[in-house]
Amino acid sequence: MTATPTRRADAQRSIEAILEAAIRSLGRNPEASVSEIAKAAGVGRVTVYGHFPNRADLIEAAMTRAIADGHAGLEAVDLSGDPRDALARLIDSSWQLVNQSRSLLIAAQDVLPPRRIRELHAGPAERMERLVERGRDEGVFRTDLATAWLVAVLHSVMHGAADEIAAGRLTADEAAGHITATVLAAFTPPS
Amino acid sequence: MTATPTRRADAQRSIEAILEAAIRSLGRNPEASVSEIAKAAGVGRVTVYGHFPNRADLIEAAMTRAIADGHAGLEAVDLSGDPRDALARLIDSSWQLVNQSRSLLIAAQDVLPPRRIRELHAGPAERMERLVERGRDEGVFRTDLATAWLVAVLHSVMHGAADEIAAGRLTADEAAGHITATVLAAFTPPS
Repeated sequence: MTATPTRRADAQRSIEAILEAAIRSLGRNPEASVSEIAKAAGVGRVTVYGHFPNRADLIEAAMTRAIADGHAGLEAVDLSGDPRDALARLIDSSWQLVNQSRSLLIAAQDVLPPRRIRELHAGPAERMERLVERGRDEGVFRTDLATAWLVAVLHSVMHGAADEIAAGRLTADEAAGHITATVLAAFTPPS
Repeated sequence: MTATPTRRADAQRSIEAILEAAIRSLGRNPEASVSEIAKAAGVGRVTVYGHFPNRADLIEAAMTRAIADGHAGLEAVDLSGDPRDALARLIDSSWQLVNQSRSLLIAAQDVLPPRRIRELHAGPAERMERLVERGRDEGVFRTDLATAWLVAVLHSVMHGAADEIAAGRLTADEAAGHITATVLAAFTPPS
């Protein structure tokens, strides 16, 4: 017997509630347990495990959802004009998202390897890539290193900033300025 | 009854053999199991678990050992002269170590959060810090961002390069040049 449309809709609503609860709970405490998340979603642990076989799967799905939501929100960032100014605006808005999700990011870093976290950022990375390409075409970003490398540098520096805040060596207020100052210098064509 | 000196010496030899086997086995395959490592060390699994309660503890100890060995090896790098040239030499030698241990690093990234991996690099980070400080004093590295931040950027970019190689977007031969070109630009005082 296959699931009826109603059953599928119920399952979908249950998944939505669990993901929202996971983003909320892990956003407050990166060590939130599956039981806590289930409680926050108003479902039983068995229901959560029915959709997500283990805590890492649930965290990966929550991270995927948070990135997709953030990515959609970045549509509003003005990427026209001088590519350096556009990059500063994009870093600023992207950092707000990383910063809001810092606790969720720490939860993800605890259970997923960095390469997987990078893969989950394919959408945001693509947007960044297009802007970097335009900056290269216009001669304001360096072309002696590949675009993919420059985007990787930005990703590494941004997530490194989240670790520095966690370690108490950087404040959340300083971070966007530090990331922008570092990345713009790193992207400048060598003289 | 406390352990006799002989017993303690036996335990120490057994730990040494296990750590060497772990570095070797994980250096070939980041997914090497505790059984494989025990076999390579010529001891039983129970002996390994007697010293390291779980696989993550064993990987952390192996990583700590590999970093300490590498750190000692870096003593030989000439850090005198122009700080930019010295940094390029230090990055080159450090990268050789990261590159040789890329498979071990991936194993560590799979079981340890990035902040813990950063903590294990306190020794190498200190050496880098002293060089960055000298470059700031001599006016060739920027002083508008903290030394700790600049060292964090280097760490993030270097480990990001290992991920890029794993993802097939960068070759091991290109990496040192890319890291140096990126970091030297990022460290340059803004004009």
